[in-house]
Amino acid sequence: MVDMKDKVLTGVSSLDKIVGDGFNRGDTILVAGQPGAGKTTFGFQFLYSGVTKYGENGVYVSFVESVNKLKRNALRLGWDFEKLIREKKVSFLDLMQTTGEKGVDANLTVIMNEIELTGAKRVVIDSLSAMTTYIETKADARTFIGMLNRFLEKAGCTSLLLVEMPWGKSDIGSGFEEFLADGLIVLESSIDGFRVRRMLFVPKMRGCDHDLNCYDFFISTNGIDVSPIPAVSKRKI
Amino acid sequence: MVDMKDKVLTGVSSLDKIVGDGFNRGDTILVAGQPGAGKTTFGFQFLYSGVTKYGENGVYVSFVESVNKLKRNALRLGWDFEKLIREKKVSFLDLMQTTGEKGVDANLTVIMNEIELTGAKRVVIDSLSAMTTYIETKADARTFIGMLNRFLEKAGCTSLLLVEMPWGKSDIGSGFEEFLADGLIVLESSIDGFRVRRMLFVPKMRGCDHDLNCYDFFISTNGIDVSPIPAVSKRKI
Amino acid sequence: MVDMKDKVLTGVSSLDKIVGDGFNRGDTILVAGQPGAGKTTFGFQFLYSGVTKYGENGVYVSFVESVNKLKRNALRLGWDFEKLIREKKVSFLDLMQTTGEKGVDANLTVIMNEIELTGAKRVVIDSLSAMTTYIETKADARTFIGMLNRFLEKAGCTSLLLVEMPWGKSDIGSGFEEFLADGLIVLESSIDGFRVRRMLFVPKMRGCDHDLNCYDFFISTNGIDVSPIPAVSKRKI
Amino acid sequence: MVDMKDKVLTGVSSLDKIVGDGFNRGDTILVAGQPGAGKTTFGFQFLYSGVTKYGENGVYVSFVESVNKLKRNALRLGWDFEKLIREKKVSFLDLMQTTGEKGVDANLTVIMNEIELTGAKRVVIDSLSAMTTYIETKADARTFIGMLNRFLEKAGCTSLLLVEMPWGKSDIGSGFEEFLADGLIVLESSIDGFRVRRMLFVPKMRGCDHDLNCYDFFISTNGIDVSPIPAVSKRKI
Amino acid sequence: MVDMKDKVLTGVSSLDKIVGDGFNRGDTILVAGQPGAGKTTFGFQFLYSGVTKYGENGVYVSFVESVNKLKRNALRLGWDFEKLIREKKVSFLDLMQTTGEKGVDANLTVIMNEIELTGAKRVVIDSLSAMTTYIETKADARTFIGMLNRFLEKAGCTSLLLVEMPWGKSDIGSGFEEFLADGLIVLESSIDGFRVRRMLFVPKMRGCDHDLNCYDFFISTNGIDVSPIPAVSKRKI
Amino acid sequence: MVDMKDKVLTGVSSLDKIVGDGFNRGDTILVAGQPGAGKTTFGFQFLYSGVTKYGENGVYVSFVESVNKLKRNALRLGWDFEKLIREKKVSFLDLMQTTGEKGVDANLTVIMNEIELTGAKRVVIDSLSAMTTYIETKADARTFIGMLNRFLEKAGCTSLLLVEMPWGKSDIGSGFEEFLADGLIVLESSIDGFRVRRMLFVPKMRGCDHDLNCYDFFISTNGIDVSPIPAVSKRKI
Repeated sequence: MVDMKDKVLTGVSSLDKIVGDGFNRGDTILVAGQPGAGKTTFGFQFLYSGVTKYGENGVYVSFVESVNKLKRNALRLGWDFEKLIREKKVSFLDLMQTTGEKGVDANLTVIMNEIELTGAKRVVIDSLSAMTTYIETKADARTFIGMLNRFLEKAGCTSLLLVEMPWGKSDIGSGFEEFLADGLIVLESSIDGFRVRRMLFVPKMRGCDHDLNCYDFFISTNGIDVSPIPAVSKRKI
Repeated sequence: MVDMKDKVLTGVSSLDKIVGDGFNRGDTILVAGQPGAGKTTFGFQFLYSGVTKYGENGVYVSFVESVNKLKRNALRLGWDFEKLIREKKVSFLDLMQTTGEKGVDANLTVIMNEIELTGAKRVVIDSLSAMTTYIETKADARTFIGMLNRFLEKAGCTSLLLVEMPWGKSDIGSGFEEFLADGLIVLESSIDGFRVRRMLFVPKMRGCDHDLNCYDFFISTNGIDVSPIPAVSKRKI
Repeated sequence: MVDMKDKVLTGVSSLDKIVGDGFNRGDTILVAGQPGAGKTTFGFQFLYSGVTKYGENGVYVSFVESVNKLKRNALRLGWDFEKLIREKKVSFLDLMQTTGEKGVDANLTVIMNEIELTGAKRVVIDSLSAMTTYIETKADARTFIGMLNRFLEKAGCTSLLLVEMPWGKSDIGSGFEEFLADGLIVLESSIDGFRVRRMLFVPKMRGCDHDLNCYDFFISTNGIDVSPIPAVSKRKI
Repeated sequence: MVDMKDKVLTGVSSLDKIVGDGFNRGDTILVAGQPGAGKTTFGFQFLYSGVTKYGENGVYVSFVESVNKLKRNALRLGWDFEKLIREKKVSFLDLMQTTGEKGVDANLTVIMNEIELTGAKRVVIDSLSAMTTYIETKADARTFIGMLNRFLEKAGCTSLLLVEMPWGKSDIGSGFEEFLADGLIVLESSIDGFRVRRMLFVPKMRGCDHDLNCYDFFISTNGIDVSPIPAVSKRKI
Repeated sequence: MVDMKDKVLTGVSSLDKIVGDGFNRGDTILVAGQPGAGKTTFGFQFLYSGVTKYGENGVYVSFVESVNKLKRNALRLGWDFEKLIREKKVSFLDLMQTTGEKGVDANLTVIMNEIELTGAKRVVIDSLSAMTTYIETKADARTFIGMLNRFLEKAGCTSLLLVEMPWGKSDIGSGFEEFLADGLIVLESSIDGFRVRRMLFVPKMRGCDHDLNCYDFFISTNGIDVSPIPAVSKRKI
Repeated sequence: MVDMKDKVLTGVSSLDKIVGDGFNRGDTILVAGQPGAGKTTFGFQFLYSGVTKYGENGVYVSFVESVNKLKRNALRLGWDFEKLIREKKVSFLDLMQTTGEKGVDANLTVIMNEIELTGAKRVVIDSLSAMTTYIETKADARTFIGMLNRFLEKAGCTSLLLVEMPWGKSDIGSGFEEFLADGLIVLESSIDGFRVRRMLFVPKMRGCDHDLNCYDFFISTNGIDVSPIPAVSKRKI
């Protein structure tokens, strides 16, 4: 029996409203963005707030940066994960070196074990793009991501899968990942009138009464902050 | 001898008019849409209304989500499929794990058996994109979909084949699926003036006097709801 | 000695004028269109009028739909091919299941035999795209279509080769088919100002004084009907 | 010692001026155009005027249509090649069936022999696209076309190489043919304001004082006719 | 324990402000630009100022030009690297001839040794595009660049990885490099109103309070100079 | 010790100013242009002026046209290379027939020998596109062009590498050649308002104070002539 009201807050209060009062527990959300759009920052915020505000443990799985750099960058934003790690509330996995061809399934096992070990309720995969880079065919990648989602669902985790959108492009992954997830948040970073403009919108959030507007958002020393007012054109005349 | 007036209502009353007073019985309809466009929701609506309003049993074939998640999401929209399943009026097939290379034809057999077993008159394939992901060549995929359509036709089923359109694209499948089906409904979800806009149009509905306008549509707790008035530009001046 | 005035009427009177008072006898005409543009309907009209108005037998070759569905859809438009088939004036070939790799040349033989058997003067291939789907290289497809054209020319048939244009694209086949045929009719179906608009134009009709304007056209219970007035922009201001 | 003034008239008087008072003798000219743009018609005109006005024999090499169809279509335009063939002033080669992989070089031999036999000074290759379709790599095609050009140059022939531009595209061949030829004439056929518009322009004509304007052109019962006035936009306000 | 304030100045004072008061020590920064955008010049400036102003040794790794040409071009800008090389403060590696397939990992060893030998704190790789040209798959390139970044991080070097953007394109590498680096500076050189316009912007600089405006920049005999005022449109009316 | 002021004049006086008072001696300059843009003409001008005005011998390497045609076309422009060849001041190499797969390196040897034999200080490669057509991978082509540049640098030659831009495209080669050369001159030929417009611009000229404006240029009986005034839009209102 599902609790229809069991919601997971995102750590960004203005975003909670946009997605429809938080995520549905157990859902897997794609977070797609260009370089510098704040995917990693949002991942930190989701996990840090999970532990410190909602008492939910978390696992951050990195296929890109070293754990040292991740922790240093989080610290600059005021989030001291070192302490939470010592308290066994958060765990960082560095799986870059095991993404080789045979490592894909092994990685899945490592992640699921870590989730069990920490009793994590929140997971961040940084990034799905990096995790699946060694999978050769679209069909195999599709199957793998499908399995990943089902494992995370069974573990009762609410998860963010970060997806890299190359600068100047608006494609999301290989064009199927967005159909396998329960939700899709786009963090768009692009040139708009001689300035990099960051906007967020949510095309999909299954079973949620989500907002369809675009919102400007900002990255500050407090993490991501989303404008409460929908975006408008900055171009006059 | 065909009954030229034998129509199948879609479950969305405003859509019935657009397609020409319902689908022709036995037709196969492609429903193409970007992520979050409501393909799955429309599939639920088609099956649920089939059983509860028109006394037609149905089969929902999933190659994407687990049956548990599907039922939970349907329940949020007020459709309790669990009850219909117990009454053997609806059946959910979860075929994600059998889509491997050898499974394509096997899947077809499983589906046709289930249709016979339940006496289904309505079928939803979610999604054609996922179902054919392991087929290596366009020619083989074309032949497979041709066969699928003929099997569904022989079984007397009116069927929705859901097709994934990647975010930001307007391609439909590999460019041939739309020629194999009797009808094509496009659920377009894209950015229009700093907002995700959802519009529906019907380029093709063989042997039906269908409407050619675009219509805004909405997804609410009642499922899909199509505006009764054709869409107009929201951009002033 | 060629009869320079030997013309074949299209079955759509407004189209006859546009192509230059009908097709030249023995020509092969490409009919390209997006899904729902009316290619099949035009094919029916060409064959049905051939038999009933001009006493010319015909062959409809289907690589897409079952003959049953084709006949049913024609019947909805008021064309009872069943009767003509019994009178041996029209023949429907269903070659979907023999398009496999080895079947391409075999199909050609079957078609040519059927033409001889029925004494057909009109042929519709539905579709060239489907017929050549198993041919692996562009070069082989080019050679095959060249041969097909020459066979049809020798048989004295005036032929329509239907070509699928994917939704949202304006490419015609693989980019060479249009150079192998004597004529090219484009049935364009695309979004124009929040509405699907169907327009017809004729870029090529060898040896004919054809019209170069675009024309709106409609599909009704009488088949295809082309506006007598060239198309204009529907967008005001 | 080259005669700098040795010019070859094109058969289209308004075009002679545009290319700079005719072609330079011995040059190879690419004539690129979409379907229905009049490439074949221009080829006929070039050969027919060569024989009847300037006493120069010609060879028409077809890789696309049968010689019968070619002659019939020319006859419709008032050019009776049958007579010129009997007088051994023009020769038509039908090489479609020998374009198979091993035939490419063989074809070259056949063409060069025919040129020698007829003492041709004008050659039309219809089309370069078809002739090279079986050559597998760009590098091999480049080498082959380079050789063809040098053979034609040595034979003292002024030659038109017809190149197919697919409908809706403005690419010329594979992107290198245009650099191997001495001249490039583009016959552009495309939609301009709800009408197929045919325009001609000459981006390249080595060693000639050619005109850089675009010109509307027409195909009538006299062949190609180029407007004497440069093209202007037809779109008012 | 990281020193959160440990900043590395870029050598271009107006740029220091834009990136947020210099780079974070130990970071790897992608510098992407079209031909002539000044990537190499900026690399010189970064190293030269490092030694002469901040007492930090440097290594310049070239996979493109000979060391002679590099030094000559630097000399034209007033930077006499010959002297610094003699003083063992800067080192130039010419690795063009060892980029062959087996050389990729060997190159990494050579670079790391040179860094240790010179005690370099600043590194320029010119270019990442050239360095990885022999790596066959995207997955292998991704792994290689990930390793390179971690090695540079461990060595405590702040590094510029130059990335080639082809003229007329705005893609950055293969679409993943930008996610592996800590920062991204785009030096855009493109046609804007009949003039090549050079603009700089910084979409990403992890953990830095960077500026999101575009800035015109200039290359003079003093190297790169960035306008202190954000760019505006040059197009009037 | 480099002479910082050692400049090589281009043969086109208005261009000398644009590139920054001539090329730097020993540099390799990419000259990219569409068909008919005047690449070959500029090559002639560069070599002819080199011998007749500045006493520098030259080598013209052709992978496209026969030497006969090249000389004839030059003669039309008033440049009698025959005389200079007899005086052993200029040499033409025809390497089309040796570009086959094994010939790439052999060609390099032939060119370097010819440079030594003639004591050439100026070299034109017509074209880099043709020269590298048989090299199969981008990585191999990159290495080959890198080697070519270094050989030319060592030989003390100032060189033009002509690069073919297909009609309608603005890509330069395979996207890396422009980073291997010291300079890039684009000769753009494209349709601008119903006319072929030729414009020149210089995005890159290392170590030179070059001009960033676009300039209209013309090809007349005196060769290339560049407008002294920057280009402006020809489109009124």
